[in-house]
Parts: sequence; C-alpha cells; structure tokens
Amino acid sequence: MKGISILGSTGSIGTQTLDVIRQHSDLFRADALVAHSNIDVLEAQIKEFSPKIAGVVDEKAYVQLKARYQGETVLIGGHEALMAAAVCESADMIVTAVVGAVGIEPTIAAIKAKKTIGLANKETLVAGGPLITALCREYGVELLPIDSEHSAIFQCLEGQTRDNVDSLLITASGGPLRLWPSEKIATATAADCLKHPTWNMGSKITIDSASLFNKGLEVIEAHWLFGFDFDHIKVTVHPQSIVHSMIMMKDGAILAQLGNPDMREPIQYALTYPKRYPLKMDTLRFEDALQLEFFPPRYDDFPALRLAYEVGKAGGFKPAIFNAANETAVYAFLDGAIRFGDIYKTVVGVLEQAESDSEFTLENLLAVDGWARRKARELMV
Amino acid sequence: MKGISILGSTGSIGTQTLDVIRQHSDLFRADALVAHSNIDVLEAQIKEFSPKIAGVVDEKAYVQLKARYQGETVLIGGHEALMAAAVCESADMIVTAVVGAVGIEPTIAAIKAKKTIGLANKETLVAGGPLITALCREYGVELLPIDSEHSAIFQCLEGQTRDNVDSLLITASGGPLRLWPSEKIATATAADCLKHPTWNMGSKITIDSASLFNKGLEVIEAHWLFGFDFDHIKVTVHPQSIVHSMIMMKDGAILAQLGNPDMREPIQYALTYPKRYPLKMDTLRFEDALQLEFFPPRYDDFPALRLAYEVGKAGGFKPAIFNAANETAVYAFLDGAIRFGDIYKTVVGVLEQAESDSEFTLENLLAVDGWARRKARELMV
Repeated sequence: MKGISILGSTGSIGTQTLDVIRQHSDLFRADALVAHSNIDVLEAQIKEFSPKIAGVVDEKAYVQLKARYQGETVLIGGHEALMAAAVCESADMIVTAVVGAVGIEPTIAAIKAKKTIGLANKETLVAGGPLITALCREYGVELLPIDSEHSAIFQCLEGQTRDNVDSLLITASGGPLRLWPSEKIATATAADCLKHPTWNMGSKITIDSASLFNKGLEVIEAHWLFGFDFDHIKVTVHPQSIVHSMIMMKDGAILAQLGNPDMREPIQYALTYPKRYPLKMDTLRFEDALQLEFFPPRYDDFPALRLAYEVGKAGGFKPAIFNAANETAVYAFLDGAIRFGDIYKTVVGVLEQAESDSEFTLENLLAVDGWARRKARELMV
Repeated sequence: MKGISILGSTGSIGTQTLDVIRQHSDLFRADALVAHSNIDVLEAQIKEFSPKIAGVVDEKAYVQLKARYQGETVLIGGHEALMAAAVCESADMIVTAVVGAVGIEPTIAAIKAKKTIGLANKETLVAGGPLITALCREYGVELLPIDSEHSAIFQCLEGQTRDNVDSLLITASGGPLRLWPSEKIATATAADCLKHPTWNMGSKITIDSASLFNKGLEVIEAHWLFGFDFDHIKVTVHPQSIVHSMIMMKDGAILAQLGNPDMREPIQYALTYPKRYPLKMDTLRFEDALQLEFFPPRYDDFPALRLAYEVGKAGGFKPAIFNAANETAVYAFLDGAIRFGDIYKTVVGVLEQAESDSEFTLENLLAVDGWARRKARELMV
C-alpha cells in the first residue's frame, strides 16, 4: 500500500490522480490533499478518501472550511499546508500538481524527506533545475514525470541504454491557434486560446499551449529530467496528441509512446512504476481508422519556443526569469489586461533587463523569481 | 570483430546485410556467403569481402562459377553450401536470408553449432516453431529477428518487463491491392501484385504481401519469437510503413518503433545488438510534414490473415502446411499457372486434406512439407 500526498488535489491533475487511486484502492491511499481555494471539491475529497492531512493554501477559504468541517482529518491553512503535505510522514510519494513556481519549495522539502516525486509541476524543474537535480542525487530520490510528453519519453527510455539514444522528440498539439494566420495571432483573445483541441487542462497551461510557451517549458524540463543537451531535444507539431513523444536512437530508429490523450495513464505509470496495471479509460483502438499528422513548428509565429531554447542554453536563472515573467503575463492576459502578443514581448523585456547571475541557491532563485514578476508587472502597465 | 555468415547473400536482405557490413568494416567481416544462382553478383561480393567460404545452391550455376573463379575463397555447391555456411567455424552469427522452407535445416545446424541467428527467413519459425524454439533453449542460442515488424517489436520489448505487456500490434502496409474492390482481387495479375507501395523486396514476399499471407506468416512468427498467444497478437493496416510495429502495455499505453522503410536498420540492429551504431540511410525527418494512417485489415477480402490465426491456434504441422502450400501456389501464380484468388483456395484445399499430426520431429516436418507441396501441385492442375 503506497501513501500518496497530492499538492493541488482539486485541479485537473489532482482529480485525475484521485481517480487512479480510486481505481486501485488496494494499491494506494491518499494521505494528504492540498487545494488552492476550492473547498467544496476538497471537502468531498476528504469525505471520500479520509486523508490524514488536508490543506487550503488560500487563507480565507481555509477559515471557511475550518468553520464548517467536522472530522478526523487535520486541516492546515496557507503555504504551510503545501509544506506539511510535502513531508507527510506516512506518504511514500508526493504528486506536485500545483501550478507555477509555488511548487518549488514544497518539492525541495519532499526531496529532503526522501519522498518519491511525481512531478506534474513543470516550473519546478524549469526554474530550479540545477538545485532540484542536485538534491535528488544527494538524497537518492526518484523524480517521476507526470507530464504526458515526459512520461512518454520516460517510458520509451525505460530499459534502453543511454548510449544508444541520440535525441528526444517532444510532440506539441500546436494548440488552438495552430492554423491561425501570422498577422492575427497577436490579437487572439483568452476565449480563443482556451479552446484547446485535444487536452482538457487548467487555464494557465492552456494559454501556454496556445503560445507554445508550454512546449518551451517542456523542452527545458526534458533537459533537466533526462540530461540531454538542447541540440538533442526536438519538437514536432502533432495535432491529434496521440503520439505523446518519442526518442531517436543512434541508428535512425525511433521509439514512440502512444495513447488517447488521457492524463490518467502517465499519472498511473508514475504511481505504479516500474509496474503497470490495467486502467479503466478509453484506450486507443486500432480496430478503428486513425490518422496521425506531424508538422514542423511555426517558430516565427510562435517565438516562445525558440526563446525557450535560448534561455535553456544560457542557463543560470534565465529559465526561471522566462518562467516567472510568462506566468505573470499569462495571468494578466487572462484578466484582460494585455493582448496575447504582449505575453512574449513582456518576457523578452524582462529578460533584457536581467542582471548577471548570482550563485544558484534557493534564496537567490526566489529573489530572482520575485524580481521577474515585479518587472513583468511594471512592463505591462 | 564479429564474423557473419549470410545464407542468401545476393537477395534483397543479403545485399543490404553486406551494405551494413561495408559501413562498419571495423565491427564486422563476411565469413561465408551463399547465393542461390546469381553468380555474377556473388563473384563481385567475393571480390569485395573475401569470405572464407562462398556457396552456390544451384548446381549448374556452381559449376559455371567454379570454372571461372580463381582465388582463395573455398567454393561449395548445392544444399551442402547452406549447411557449410551455417556452421562456418569463424562465424559468430548466421543471417538466414534465404526464401522459403529451405532455411529450416541450415538454421537448425547453426543453432547446434551455437551461432547467434539473425532470422530473416520467416518460414523457419512458421513451419518449425516448436522445434526451433526448443533447440534455441537447449543450446542457449539467441534468435534475433530481422523482419522489420519483428525487429520493431523486439526493440519495443527491449528492457520492458514481460508482465507489463498486454499484446503485440503488427503493422501491415496492406500491399498493392489494399484499395482494390472486393470482386476484382481474385483476378489480380502478378504485375499488379509486384507493385509494392513501400517496400522493395523479393517477388515471393511481395505476392505474400498482396494476399496478406505475409502478415499471416508474421503473426505466427511473432507467436514463436515472443511467446504471446494468438489472441494477444493483432494487426493494423498502415499504408505508409513508417510505424514498423507496436506493443500494447497493460495500462493502455502503446510503444511503437518508427522509421523510414529501410531494412538496413533492423539488419544492423540484429548485428550490433544490444548496441546501436549510426547508419548511413535516409532517416525519418520530423522537420518535414508527415502523415500516418491506420485502418482495420479487410479480413473478408484477404482471408489468408484469418486463416493464419486458425492454423496458428491449431498448431502442430498446420502452419507448416499453410506455409508450404502457399509457397508452392505463389510460384505457380508467378509462373502464370493459376489466378491470384487460387493461391488461398489451394492452401485451404491442402489443409482440408491434411492428416492428423505425427510427432513434431524434423524428419516428420520435412515429410509433411513435401506432402503439402505435392498436394498443392495436384490441386492446381
């Protein structure tokens, strides 16, 4: 029986993680559940899964739940909730499914507590790659990817000799603006961007998917997860999102992982790894006709992807700035404060003003992250 | 330095195996080369690769070459050439690239001489599966598939826990008659059938590809190579021949091996296994647009595939009869003696007259094989 702690239990990844736990109640139990503010869903989850700890990051929502909840689960409020769930004693694995850079500190705490990490929060590695990977080595902790693309690569790499692999090939759906004419893209509305063709995800990641910032973040994440340099990580646009990613072998052969776009498969694989168990989902059927297309990315029309390679190669705090500035700009875009095209411009603007790097410590990382957010807000006024 | 012996060196697989050896002359040397009758090509190969042994199965052609050849390579004629090359002392690996049931005896000899087998002759396992696999276990010999489909499955299975795998999914190009109307298929000419859309292969296998007999043989071969029962081996038609085959995992994930249709990749993988080396070939480029389609097989219009499952499940000598009758009928079709639709009818006719099985020995297998060929010829008169 494996104890699971979920940071972000009411979001898309969180609820699907609980569905996997529900399907395999003989294998898993939910030990800790932390939500941002959705206390109605969290309360139902507490009732169903009886975790030891439940947390609400938003203080106001926490007070509301605290006032009405009667039961044995210990309630915790604020950022402290994430930290407590990260080190929850009975938990074997922490699923970090919170959105944004807020995932970094609890992930570090979980690594130090020697918990296996199921990583659905890509910002953790994008911003904190050097720190996180060094800590994982130091504490002997496994980092299991939950992103569909990275899980696909992880599944393809399983059992392969590293020396036989030439490069990684990440697939991108291309997002809702994939076929838009170049001149219209900058003025896409939030509503346009939220119509994702294949994946049902949270709003921040859906905007990132429209801008290809998401794919850029994934390229940087893949670099840290799998240790390939940026010239050996490639991207192809695959609108059907059936091939979740591939690896290219030294002899020209390509290994791919396929399936219907259903996050429960990569989630379950991280939970059951290295074993696999049946999963009740709509499995890809080759009894039906199926068509898969691949196109080169439109680098000029969606420049965030090229920028991601640049900041990834530059290293240091550049990816953290790229991530923080984008996160700030995306929320401004969702609030209607800026245009779609301004997200990229804001990130470039913040990067241009970045000072030379200081030592890569958590303290400095959080300082740079805060600076990039403030600078992004200044530029968007 | 690995010594390679090639049975069928002047055919499609043979010449491509030599191209792999040519590209990696630091890793491989050709120790023995055996051709059926193409002595001009064989003579050039002898000149280039200086094998210890060269053989010509056709006695007349052997006498011709013997008369004009002056050099240090030892020439051998007749069936004996295959047997000598199979046990060639300095050879580490035997590539069995001859067409048809003639591959069985030399393969057995090579296994007993503890040579690694690179198996491009699918009839060996289809007809002699129980015998060959038992011998491989007894002598601790590895059987490495060279068929593109089986190599793909072998590559996908590499490093995976057997218990995590649910089933195999073999791709079929569908052959040149894939889109033909049902009522026209029976009257397809040899010329129609030899226009293979994606693979450049010998004529016997190309006809088998048009009838889906080839895919049926591959299903049976996969059963023996990988130990999956027939309900866990599936076929999907994939006209582009880019996805060479797949494996379906217990959790619904699918792993696939992809590449341009170039036999040198699976050949080289068998030769270099478990390592991979660069291979000069036209590698699949995701920088270009790419479209992959999958369709269910037309079981009713190409009934050989369903029949293959039936004989595979029945076991014993049924697959050997299926193979021998088909081989005889295909050559009759290529000679213009029967119609395309008669190939299947002949095979069914021979199977209907088959007696109940005797013990599975090589002697009985060869007797049954001979009986099936005679019976097929009788039925085609």
